[in-house]
Amino acid sequence: MAKLSKDQFLISENCAGISHIDNVIQDKVRENQARLTKPEGSLGRLEDLAIHIAGIKQKAYPTLINNLIVVVAADHGIAQQGVSAYPQVVTKQMMANFINQGGAINVLGKSIGARVVLIDAGINNGHFKDTAVVSLGTGHGTDDFTNGPAMTRKNAEKSVATGIKFFNTELKNNEIDIVACGEMGIGNTTAAAALTAAITGKNPKIVTGRGTGIDDFTYKKKLSAIEQALKINVFDPKDAIGLLSALGGYEIAVMTGIYIGAARNKVPILIDGVISSVSALIAVILEPKISEYLISSHLSPEPAHQIILDRMNLIPLLDLDLRLGEATGAALGLSLCISACKLLNEMATFTDAQVAGKIT
Amino acid sequence: MAKLSKDQFLISENCAGISHIDNVIQDKVRENQARLTKPEGSLGRLEDLAIHIAGIKQKAYPTLINNLIVVVAADHGIAQQGVSAYPQVVTKQMMANFINQGGAINVLGKSIGARVVLIDAGINNGHFKDTAVVSLGTGHGTDDFTNGPAMTRKNAEKSVATGIKFFNTELKNNEIDIVACGEMGIGNTTAAAALTAAITGKNPKIVTGRGTGIDDFTYKKKLSAIEQALKINVFDPKDAIGLLSALGGYEIAVMTGIYIGAARNKVPILIDGVISSVSALIAVILEPKISEYLISSHLSPEPAHQIILDRMNLIPLLDLDLRLGEATGAALGLSLCISACKLLNEMATFTDAQVAGKIT
Repeated sequence: MAKLSKDQFLISENCAGISHIDNVIQDKVRENQARLTKPEGSLGRLEDLAIHIAGIKQKAYPTLINNLIVVVAADHGIAQQGVSAYPQVVTKQMMANFINQGGAINVLGKSIGARVVLIDAGINNGHFKDTAVVSLGTGHGTDDFTNGPAMTRKNAEKSVATGIKFFNTELKNNEIDIVACGEMGIGNTTAAAALTAAITGKNPKIVTGRGTGIDDFTYKKKLSAIEQALKINVFDPKDAIGLLSALGGYEIAVMTGIYIGAARNKVPILIDGVISSVSALIAVILEPKISEYLISSHLSPEPAHQIILDRMNLIPLLDLDLRLGEATGAALGLSLCISACKLLNEMATFTDAQVAGKIT
Repeated sequence: MAKLSKDQFLISENCAGISHIDNVIQDKVRENQARLTKPEGSLGRLEDLAIHIAGIKQKAYPTLINNLIVVVAADHGIAQQGVSAYPQVVTKQMMANFINQGGAINVLGKSIGARVVLIDAGINNGHFKDTAVVSLGTGHGTDDFTNGPAMTRKNAEKSVATGIKFFNTELKNNEIDIVACGEMGIGNTTAAAALTAAITGKNPKIVTGRGTGIDDFTYKKKLSAIEQALKINVFDPKDAIGLLSALGGYEIAVMTGIYIGAARNKVPILIDGVISSVSALIAVILEPKISEYLISSHLSPEPAHQIILDRMNLIPLLDLDLRLGEATGAALGLSLCISACKLLNEMATFTDAQVAGKIT
């Protein structure tokens, strides 16, 4: 067997270190939930959510205080084909908007008291001097994947490894009770749709959506770009790095790395829309146990999203027709996770409150 | 025409004072939304929500700062028939639990910074001396409606009027940017199902659910109690007061009054589960324009809930399998309303942020 590169070693070592979530704790939480002053199961998915988070964190009474939202941005060569309603420069401009607290994710992050970290994973002419942006320098946007691979295998590995390292560094410097991931990148629903088709074998027509809101003319260009990308590139649906290399994006690869790092460290992961979800699916291809650490925040109208979530047996918490990205849906889902944990921690029990139980 | 009683006059005067919500403001907000740094419509239902709230409050940039959650509790004579999984005393005990901040709604209210007001609308042997409880003294629980009407018409009118007066007094003493309503009352899903059948003409089998989680034996008793109530009582589906009198509950009637008061004062209303929603439907029977002021927070698994929401053309924000009541779903919906308004108020515009718009 060939010697692993440093990046390959980091990825494989971290994946190997991921364990199943704790079922014993989950059973204990189920018992504790039954003692709280409410009919059993009456808080529905909030109860399941608290049990899930407890199992991930191996804590019977998990709290979500230090909550991290990561927005990973990158550019896509495919944007040059005119597949988006917006020009490529918007990726960089929106990053500046996030730095100035003007984006939707800034508003939502502040509202729920989460820390928002911005990552430049490969923005064309990014060069952010601002300390608010973590520049991972994994590239200056992908190549146009209708002409060949979006990135080299080496760069795909480097990006995933960089995501893992980012998470580990963050975790060294800060408590992280939960992480929510989202993205910014003009053209990235095209990459997400291409990856979904490549992984699932579905027809591009079924997985391709309207992204930021494109017209019929642009939709046709988007669809044929995806068809061309699938024709010209070589990939194996079981080879995560190969998929990223052929059809990925730098933000997609970095998020995959963040998920690996989070699962390795027993930190629950909230995924956002179609792009952060395809990243999660790629992480799951690398290491299936990662699926146990994922919480799907919402369902976007992008047709690939439901298909990806089904693949991972994830049921989204919200269905609000959100298609902005930036981790906005994940932030709303995070708010539900916080509520779920508070209910478990703070509600009185039947005994404490001297409330009569069920008639037997 | 017979002279109206004081209560009848108050109800009819307040209903007559309710106007349509403001479509001109809504169009203005739609334009403002389009200037924010996001693809048009990409925040989905959050955008609709902000537009809706703006139309109700007649403000282009509405804010939700002073948010009121009301939990209305009452007892039901029908509980004596053994239709619930819990003994009737739990209504009173849970009220004490709410006073001591031990209930789910206390946790959620605190979490979103909303004020929680408790109302004793007719709890058996309630006698709450605690100032945390507003005692409306509308009765000591309803009569068993399998033997005749749940309450007199006069008491139904008094309860609705009391709800209106409660809201107006609250509004005199406090700013109220939005009101969320929920309830507590052993046996009240039986009343809600009976009312739904009476209003819609649906078969009791279709509208009757498992409430707090009853077994098959109890379910059969619940169903036959509802069938008996519909047989023995006389009601007209268009006569709101008659419906409340025949099959209602004191908390249901008081909530109807609160909705009238809120709509009269242009305050958005978040409804919770099946019981607070049937109250809303009764308010809408009294004055159809009230439906414009309603926001459905969530869909409960009680089968009557979807039927009631459909009647009012309301689409719930959340579907989390919640069936606790207490305004818990409404509190989560409130959190979404707060986010929706913050996004409208705080996001940067394309011009301010110097972000390029759509390619034309």
